[in-house]
Parts: sequence; C-alpha cells; structure tokens
Amino acid sequence: MTASLLLRKVRPMGGPVTDVRIADGRIVATGASLSAPAGVPTEDGGGCLMLPGLVEAHTHLDKSLLGLPWYVNEVGPKLLDKIDNERLNKRRLNMDPYVQSFRQTVQSSQFGSTHIRSHVDVDTDHGMWGIEGIMKMREECRDIIDVEIVAFPQSGLLRRPGTLALMHEAMKLGSEVVGGLDPCAIDRDPKGHLDAVFDLCQTYGKALDIHLHEPGEMGAFSFDLIIERTRALGMKGKVTVSHAFCLGSPDRDLVDPLIDQIAELDIAIMTTGPAARPAPPIKRLLAAGIRVCSGSDGIRDTWGPYGNGDMLERAMFVGLRNNCRRADEMRLAFDVVTTEGAKVMELDGYGLAVGCQADLLLVPGETLAEAIVSRTAQRRVIKRGRIVARDGVSILKAPGQLS
Amino acid sequence: MTASLLLRKVRPMGGPVTDVRIADGRIVATGASLSAPAGVPTEDGGGCLMLPGLVEAHTHLDKSLLGLPWYVNEVGPKLLDKIDNERLNKRRLNMDPYVQSFRQTVQSSQFGSTHIRSHVDVDTDHGMWGIEGIMKMREECRDIIDVEIVAFPQSGLLRRPGTLALMHEAMKLGSEVVGGLDPCAIDRDPKGHLDAVFDLCQTYGKALDIHLHEPGEMGAFSFDLIIERTRALGMKGKVTVSHAFCLGSPDRDLVDPLIDQIAELDIAIMTTGPAARPAPPIKRLLAAGIRVCSGSDGIRDTWGPYGNGDMLERAMFVGLRNNCRRADEMRLAFDVVTTEGAKVMELDGYGLAVGCQADLLLVPGETLAEAIVSRTAQRRVIKRGRIVARDGVSILKAPGQLS
Repeated sequence: MTASLLLRKVRPMGGPVTDVRIADGRIVATGASLSAPAGVPTEDGGGCLMLPGLVEAHTHLDKSLLGLPWYVNEVGPKLLDKIDNERLNKRRLNMDPYVQSFRQTVQSSQFGSTHIRSHVDVDTDHGMWGIEGIMKMREECRDIIDVEIVAFPQSGLLRRPGTLALMHEAMKLGSEVVGGLDPCAIDRDPKGHLDAVFDLCQTYGKALDIHLHEPGEMGAFSFDLIIERTRALGMKGKVTVSHAFCLGSPDRDLVDPLIDQIAELDIAIMTTGPAARPAPPIKRLLAAGIRVCSGSDGIRDTWGPYGNGDMLERAMFVGLRNNCRRADEMRLAFDVVTTEGAKVMELDGYGLAVGCQADLLLVPGETLAEAIVSRTAQRRVIKRGRIVARDGVSILKAPGQLS
Repeated sequence: MTASLLLRKVRPMGGPVTDVRIADGRIVATGASLSAPAGVPTEDGGGCLMLPGLVEAHTHLDKSLLGLPWYVNEVGPKLLDKIDNERLNKRRLNMDPYVQSFRQTVQSSQFGSTHIRSHVDVDTDHGMWGIEGIMKMREECRDIIDVEIVAFPQSGLLRRPGTLALMHEAMKLGSEVVGGLDPCAIDRDPKGHLDAVFDLCQTYGKALDIHLHEPGEMGAFSFDLIIERTRALGMKGKVTVSHAFCLGSPDRDLVDPLIDQIAELDIAIMTTGPAARPAPPIKRLLAAGIRVCSGSDGIRDTWGPYGNGDMLERAMFVGLRNNCRRADEMRLAFDVVTTEGAKVMELDGYGLAVGCQADLLLVPGETLAEAIVSRTAQRRVIKRGRIVARDGVSILKAPGQLS
C-alpha cells in the first residue's frame, strides 16, 4: 500500500527546514510552502530531522523472546552451547516464529526501521517452521516494513545430515538469500561448507550472507576461501560477510590484504559493533569503498538479554566500538544503519531525493549525532508515504500485544 | 532532609513481594502488610523491583554540554587534543560549572543515581571555577543526591606550572578525593606526578582516584609505581585506579601479577566498559575480591556526544564489554553500578537491609537483567525516604530547565 502526504517543516539530514510532498508512496517535491491536492493529509514536522528509514540488515526474527516470560539465562560459554541450548528449547519456550517475529518486527518499525534482513533458522528439528512463520508474518506486516529472508543453517550445514536438503527447500519456498556459518569452527569442514552454500547460491541465483565469527588466523583463512569462491563464481557484489571478527585483528599484515580483495570483489561487511569481540574497522572499510551495514543481531533471546531493535541505538554501538566522536565520524555510524544497509540489501529508490520511496523517520534534534545519542521515543515512522508509527506506537498490533 | 514512607508491594532485588517501612530516611522494617504511623505517605510499588540507589562513581559534572546548543565536534584524535580543546573553549561555550553540573545531576537522579563521585577540573586557566561551582550545586541538590568531589588536574599537574598549588587550594576548599592523570603520557614524569599526588593525599588525609588511560606495558609500569606508593605509604584501601586499560591487555603474564597486588592492597578499579579500548576484566577482578565500580565518565561533552548519566545503561555497557549474558553475569554488571560502587565510595549504610539508608530505585521488570536491558523511563527514585524523581521528572529543576 502506498499513500500521499504533505510533510511540513522537516529538516532532511539536519539541513534547512523544508516541506516535502509525497505522492503514491514516493517523494515528488521538496521546497518551501508546498501545497498538496485536496484530501492529502498534512503532517507538521515541527522542525524534526527527516532521515531515511533505518535499515536493520542483520537480525534473527525467529529468536526473540519478546512478550514471553523473562528467560533466566544459564547457558554455557561456547558458541555451540548457545546453538544447542536454543534448538533444544524453542518449542518448550513457546518460541513460535510467526508470533515472535511479529513482535520484533512491530517493535523495529516503531523505532524507525523500514527494511529488515532476517536470518531464519533452518535445522532438522524444526524444518520450515521458522521460514514459514516469518513468511506469514511479513505478509501481514508488509504495509509497515519490508522483510528479506536469509535461510540460515544455524546448527551447522554438514554436521547435522539432512540440513542441506532443508536449505534447498527453504530456497524453493522463496528465501531471498543463502546463509552460512563458521565453516571451520562449526561445520569443521570449510571446503565442504563453502562449496555447499555457494552451490545453493548458484542453483537459485541468490546472494550469500554468511556468519563468520571465526577470529584471527582461522577467520582470515575462511574469509580467503570465501574470496576465492566469490571471484571464481563471478559473485562480485553478491556476498555479505556478517560479523567478520577476523577483520578486527590488530595484525595489519593479516587484515590489509583481505580488505584489498574485499573491496575489489565488492563484498559487504556487517558489524553489530560488538564491544567484547574484535570488530571490523568501519572507518578503514568505508574509506576503501566497502559497503558496511549493521544490525541488531538477536534481541532478547536465549543467547543473551540485550538489544531492542533500535537501529539508532545500534548506530551508537557502532560509533562507540569504532571510537566515532567527531560529527564526520558520527555520520559514518549513521550511514551504516541507513544508506550502507540499503546498498547491501540492494534497495531500489532508497533515500531522500525526489523520486525515492517515502520510507522516512522524523525525529527531534539538532544534528544526526544528537539523534543517535538521544534515541528519543518521539519518533514518527513513514512507510511508502503512510505514517505507520508515532511515539513508539505502531498502526499494527503484534499477536498477544495488549496496548 | 530525611523522610518516612511506606512502600507497598515491592520486590527487593527481584525477590518475593514485600512491604518496606522507611522512617527518618532509613529502612526500618520489611514484611507483609506493614502499617505506618498516621501521616506517613504510602506508595504502591505495584510489584516493581526495589533496587539500591545507583552509584555513579566516575563522572565529570563540570564537562557536560546538556541544555546548551549542540556542539559540533571536530576535535583531533589525541588525548591532548581533547584536553586542550576543552580547556580553550569552556568559557566560549558558556560551560558554567554550577549550571552544567546541576543539569547533569538532576538527570542522573532522574535515572536513579543516589550518589555521584565527580572529578572536577583544576587548571591554571580556570582555577577554582569548577570546584566552587560543583560545591554550590551539590549544596542545592543535597536532598536528591550525594556528590563527592575529586580535584582533578585534567590538563596535567606538572606540565603546566601553578597547577599543583591549585590542587592544594582545591583540597583546602573541601574536595574529598585527590585526582591524578596518566603520569607517563600526559605529565611525562611518572615519578614526579605520582609523588605529587600521593603527597597531596598524605597532606590532607584523603584518598586517591587516578585516571590511567595508558595501555599495555606503559600502563602496567605506571600501575606498578602506584602500587609501590600505595604499599609504602600505607594507603591500602584508599586508592582507585580509573579506566585501567592496561588491565585489559591480553598478556596474562603482564596483567596477572598486577591483579594479585591490586587485590592485596585493596585498590579499587573503575571501568566504563569502553567498547573501543582494552578494558579491565570485571569477572576476573571481582573473583579476586577487588572492588570494581563504574561511571558515565563525561556525558555529551566536548570529548564526544555519548552518554546520559543512566547507570542502568552503564551496567548494560559493562555487561556488553565483558560478555555478560547469563543471569549470574548480569548480576555482576549490576553490582558494579550499585554495591561495588558503594564500597569504592565507602558509603555508610548502603543497601536494602533494615537499618540502611533508604536510597532506592523502583523499576518495573521481572529480573535484574530485564531492568538493565530495558532501561525503562518508568522509574521512581527515593533519597533518604523521599521520592525525588518519578517517571523521569525530578522534584528539582536545573537552571534554565523549562519543564
């Protein structure tokens, strides 16, 4: 659904005050004292910043425990502890993917996200439960947000036989992106894992977004194998490496040659700005012309209690992690949760220019930096010209939501 | 000022529901269906968590730009760039220490802090401007919060002649703690700097809280000199080292012997949970019996735009930085912003036991972890038995505050 709207007195990216006319879901004019056809609603921007809709480029909509009783976390320290703990408890905790993804999606929209890329678990215990649940949810939420699905072999692709067949099924059902995970550390067969996920990409003509938590030399090795296949298979611009902790290694002799090839092959990097792990250096990556997006990752799930889906807060985390302090550096953190994310998701018509889709966030404040650090609840969110959330209240209610 | 109050239906630390009776500013009874003398107000806790007041153990009340026009930060990358930039712009930016500290203090109280330790700049450009301003503010704010002052030679103690005399003046005016700063990196004379600050401690019979940003081997060297003086001068339990990035070095052969001596001499460590720097490992430090507190550091100042004075948010940062995920780990992050901070500040009668001073925070939620990650604005803050802030609105207004 698209709508028409006249926005009065907004400041695009914190610049001078202007009016913005939206027709049929697209920005058609900006300027002083615009008028609109009869019947088109007018919204007084009150001098708010007008920002492009936030891009949540890495989350797990099927994992959140939002709206469920508080989960007292006693999980073990290893990555596999968390993977197994979650898989074994999903049904016991009543983590219905449709319901939980609906709750998180509404919350994300209320914070200002207009696009989500979600990894969705595919494993032999749950089959298409997650994929089908998210697909049902996104159909019902399509007026407030666009959701892209990455079929994600969270529990490993090869170590649990039958998973690869399910990945084929998930792609046939309409998943947009192929997922993968730590080819050394989880599947313990980097060649086998990467050959399999790249084959899925080739078979279905889809992009790849692979989780790579592996640090240091191991991560650099896996990354090198990803680079090799990206080049050999002509997948330039079609690969995202999420987390990429190895790029946060202090060893420039290890990292710099990787960065050169990542730029050459237009591989995108996703970082959450993790405080406790080595993190890809966004300033150096962006300076090299590499697309860098961000995301909430799992929010309030069996992995940990943090997160809320607010991509302005995520920009703060990315800024803090990368020591962004100056206005120009804060702009980089902002770009990562907006325009850079849009590039990674290859969104058509994203932005504030005339002709762009009117996916917008209005927020009070003087500057982009203020918007990021204040994270005020006073937000208005516009999707295709329609106001879909106001002061943290969406036009949609999630299942079981009281108010 | 102290007050009496009957709290109904609160859950101390997330435990079972109880009533709490407060008389003359102290907790005098807990239990079911308590009654209070006529005229004592009753507050329905509604099943909220009852937590001890948050302890802001490291901030800079004289630095915040709260309430001033947004500062567009273009400062250089070095620590000295930030130091000089601030000192040269304080008057130009109208950073009146009384006004700015008042604004931050009210905001801190609204978030639930009941105690603040603030470093306050002492330098040859501004003399006692900061110390006197904070002292005036804390007198006017004494009903909502207790403020302790660290005289802080931000611009260096020896490199700018005349500063040491001003430090003496600040101590004579009634500063409670002697401050110091990077004896190698800023003053470039570790022996001279440390001898001077320890001499101030000895002269005035006060504790030390020294900023130590120096990383790795340099920081370990400075820390070793601090340890040497702490032992030689009998200052066990009277020294805090703030930031202590060197303890975040991955070199256990460097760090572990330091930790042993820090524990032996009961030196306290302050960490903000910095995402972009090596950070003291709170789990290991607490396990060694070391007092570990936290603080907001500067909030929204010329150093950077981040921070708001919310010590629940700070617990989140500390938790994220130290990879706290499980409930028991979240408890550590919570302790750091409450009981541990109280130990560092040597607060008498801090806590939730009968007899303790009724400095409390009521916040909705099921668990401590939920309180930390939700950071809801629905908070009630109690200082010596009186409700001093409700849903983010203080009983005090800062100068120039509209609502």
